[in-house]
Amino acid sequence: MKEKLVSESLTIMTEMIMPNDTNPLGNLMGGNLMRWMDIAGGICAAKHCASNVVTASVDHVSFSSAIRVGDVITLKAYPTRAFTTSLEVYVEVYAANMIGGNERQSNHAYLSFVALDNETKKPCKVPPLRPVSSEEQKRFDGASRRRELRLILSGRLKPGDATEIKDFFANT
Amino acid sequence: MKEKLVSESLTIMTEMIMPNDTNPLGNLMGGNLMRWMDIAGGICAAKHCASNVVTASVDHVSFSSAIRVGDVITLKAYPTRAFTTSLEVYVEVYAANMIGGNERQSNHAYLSFVALDNETKKPCKVPPLRPVSSEEQKRFDGASRRRELRLILSGRLKPGDATEIKDFFANT
Amino acid sequence: MKEKLVSESLTIMTEMIMPNDTNPLGNLMGGNLMRWMDIAGGICAAKHCASNVVTASVDHVSFSSAIRVGDVITLKAYPTRAFTTSLEVYVEVYAANMIGGNERQSNHAYLSFVALDNETKKPCKVPPLRPVSSEEQKRFDGASRRRELRLILSGRLKPGDATEIKDFFANT
Amino acid sequence: MKEKLVSESLTIMTEMIMPNDTNPLGNLMGGNLMRWMDIAGGICAAKHCASNVVTASVDHVSFSSAIRVGDVITLKAYPTRAFTTSLEVYVEVYAANMIGGNERQSNHAYLSFVALDNETKKPCKVPPLRPVSSEEQKRFDGASRRRELRLILSGRLKPGDATEIKDFFANT
Amino acid sequence: MKEKLVSESLTIMTEMIMPNDTNPLGNLMGGNLMRWMDIAGGICAAKHCASNVVTASVDHVSFSSAIRVGDVITLKAYPTRAFTTSLEVYVEVYAANMIGGNERQSNHAYLSFVALDNETKKPCKVPPLRPVSSEEQKRFDGASRRRELRLILSGRLKPGDATEIKDFFANT
Amino acid sequence: MKEKLVSESLTIMTEMIMPNDTNPLGNLMGGNLMRWMDIAGGICAAKHCASNVVTASVDHVSFSSAIRVGDVITLKAYPTRAFTTSLEVYVEVYAANMIGGNERQSNHAYLSFVALDNETKKPCKVPPLRPVSSEEQKRFDGASRRRELRLILSGRLKPGDATEIKDFFANT
Repeated sequence: MKEKLVSESLTIMTEMIMPNDTNPLGNLMGGNLMRWMDIAGGICAAKHCASNVVTASVDHVSFSSAIRVGDVITLKAYPTRAFTTSLEVYVEVYAANMIGGNERQSNHAYLSFVALDNETKKPCKVPPLRPVSSEEQKRFDGASRRRELRLILSGRLKPGDATEIKDFFANT
Repeated sequence: MKEKLVSESLTIMTEMIMPNDTNPLGNLMGGNLMRWMDIAGGICAAKHCASNVVTASVDHVSFSSAIRVGDVITLKAYPTRAFTTSLEVYVEVYAANMIGGNERQSNHAYLSFVALDNETKKPCKVPPLRPVSSEEQKRFDGASRRRELRLILSGRLKPGDATEIKDFFANT
Repeated sequence: MKEKLVSESLTIMTEMIMPNDTNPLGNLMGGNLMRWMDIAGGICAAKHCASNVVTASVDHVSFSSAIRVGDVITLKAYPTRAFTTSLEVYVEVYAANMIGGNERQSNHAYLSFVALDNETKKPCKVPPLRPVSSEEQKRFDGASRRRELRLILSGRLKPGDATEIKDFFANT
Repeated sequence: MKEKLVSESLTIMTEMIMPNDTNPLGNLMGGNLMRWMDIAGGICAAKHCASNVVTASVDHVSFSSAIRVGDVITLKAYPTRAFTTSLEVYVEVYAANMIGGNERQSNHAYLSFVALDNETKKPCKVPPLRPVSSEEQKRFDGASRRRELRLILSGRLKPGDATEIKDFFANT
Repeated sequence: MKEKLVSESLTIMTEMIMPNDTNPLGNLMGGNLMRWMDIAGGICAAKHCASNVVTASVDHVSFSSAIRVGDVITLKAYPTRAFTTSLEVYVEVYAANMIGGNERQSNHAYLSFVALDNETKKPCKVPPLRPVSSEEQKRFDGASRRRELRLILSGRLKPGDATEIKDFFANT
Repeated sequence: MKEKLVSESLTIMTEMIMPNDTNPLGNLMGGNLMRWMDIAGGICAAKHCASNVVTASVDHVSFSSAIRVGDVITLKAYPTRAFTTSLEVYVEVYAANMIGGNERQSNHAYLSFVALDNETKKPCKVPPLRPVSSEEQKRFDGASRRRELRLILSGRLKPGDATEIKDFFANT
């Protein structure tokens, strides 16, 4: 399968925060933001895989900065690394007020998607990703450690077998 | 007021077509597309004007290519020219299927927005736009003719006083 | 095909403006109004054509009067003239506050729809429209000039060949 | 207070059934229809009362005919009788398929609304309704019997004190 | 068919009131509450019947206590009695403010659902319900009287033939 | 502050999967599920804290089992442990088809919420949680390890200082 570049499936989404997206304090609810992160990530993954995809997991997301009704958020979704039948995607979220002021990075998360064959709906091969910039290389390199953590957290890998993570904690 | 560039307020929106966005044939309804064009244009205008904006008009939109449930559309909104208290914005829409195939430009429209002062909510001055590329210059040049047509169509200019448009038809 | 009357497919829609329909100033967003105009026009066109329809174009819409959350809008959609496989529909919008006060016409637009055969999904013949009142006759007469303008604006007619519009500007 | 006519607040709503309005069999869910009946009734009541209103009760609704995705429903809401601070409204629903065929009355219900003073938000006087047609008179006459039944069903009247209803059953 | 218990299909739903659910006074609109009551009732009925169901009727609902944006409502749906191909369900609604204070029962209603065979989509047999607690028995016993009233109100039973209701009024 | 029990703020939500909640394959999108998990968790946290809350973080979520349009999901949210001004909540999701068959646990996640004083909107003290059952005790005990991982993942704790996690990996 032919290697693909990050730039081929980079996906940019912009959303304006409407009243129904917010809690009674007028702040965007975390769950709505995660919903958009999943859509942006899924569009990005479907482009890279050139197939249907389903969300396999969403890693830890933290919410530090309040986003208000009328604010505008911009989501950028980049593929980081392809595994056999899955793809890790990095989604970062920037927020600004309606007139473009007070810009800040508000969130980010790693999501993984499984590619499904368009006919059989069974998992199918994903084209390899070729990182180009040093930023892309860094995310590519961290992907196997994040994958190990994901397997532990979903109960499919014993902590004792997580060699990358053990090394990581041993050396810090 | 300081001139601003097109690139400072370019706005990119990506949307996946959901079942409720479509008619019983499974095609995106034109009105939903116009709703998104208005949001993308409004975000772009608010960034350029650095103020609240309201939609003043939407020019002719035509729909030539069916967009299906599951397709992904990308909207790009560019400011084209500032007038005293208003801004013209060009929105173009690209469609592709979910896996990134069958890409085509599906629509475009010119919208105009009025800037409102953040305190008084009355129309306020808009920073001038400086076109850079030849594409930007072309849209800037056409803006006064489109504005004349808009004034005729909303009954605020007599057709006989539309000098730019009369010239346009006389010379074609 | 048997001629049909305007009254046979007149469509009246009433909507109350909900918080999510408005921008952060509490005014109805233009794009949401266009979405409803498209739905009202489409229902009207489907009734006249007795077939599925798709939106082909929306002419210039201008927004002059702010509509607030809690206001009630009434849309009226009338067919104005049938062409071979398409129909022009006129939609007018009235706004009032919740208790029926401050009534005013807030908007109007001409939309055109293409009729699709219920089996083949290909464009199909549209029954002719017979105007009755002088108002209906006036909209019927203006329809061919608006159609010429539409063809120019969508790039399917050269301005130099737009005989009706040239006459219109020459005589004003 | 000046009497008002039914025609002054008659409200007509048209809605196209979208996928999200239906159950997995593709039929409009009863609850969505009731939601629209409440909105149509509330708009009608606010016009008659020229004040804010809140729904006080909805009488028995039965659903006999399936309404499908893509069908078009028309709701008509008429005031039937004013009581001191409340108004009874009759809402009838007609359904047809998208091309205007298979028209049938699908539902109807009586709703009652309480008028709230626009300043104090407390119940306020409602203008009397003057029935004109025999249809309007019939609904006006039945209103006190329906009101008695409503008071029994909400536990605010003992069945033994319901003189109108006792007579009704005694004489049938 | 095997008898089933109330507890086997008891359904609990919790909803937070969002801005779009409310009227311009910030109170939950009655129609939205009825929509949720219908969904809760339908899920409960489908579980008891182990088949698709459609709403046949909703009995009188009254609204006494205002529910505000940000409030949390809890709906509980219990089957009360099975008839040949239909099931009566009792839905009660509790409201509290967001922090769990000011708890009160705000509404209740009886709904009836018809079971549809999963293949033929025609009405099918419903398993009998066995009441256990005295509360369940009381609702079971009242179901035939409510059913008579429903048949009268939908015009399928002459008031003179409503023996249970006549007795009820005669003896109170 | 008085200790509170898990049972005092246990929150149960039931949702039916509607067409707009699903991707073009007809499966519930992961992001929509996370949105509901956040709402259930937030209602639970607001009840325990008796104050407004905002989502601080969502831990790893994995999606193993497809949930289809028409399926019914039940979310249960339990508080697990209170920290100074935050609360950890465990949300588990069960799915079944519409008629109550094919029941399975489909997902779970730990979320953390920060309590905000109802007046000042600043973080405020959270009542301690007293675990009762062994299940509750187990979740209570694991909470500090999960909290350490959360602090590492959000960059607020150096991996080398994560004593609980280091021990965990060393001993497995």
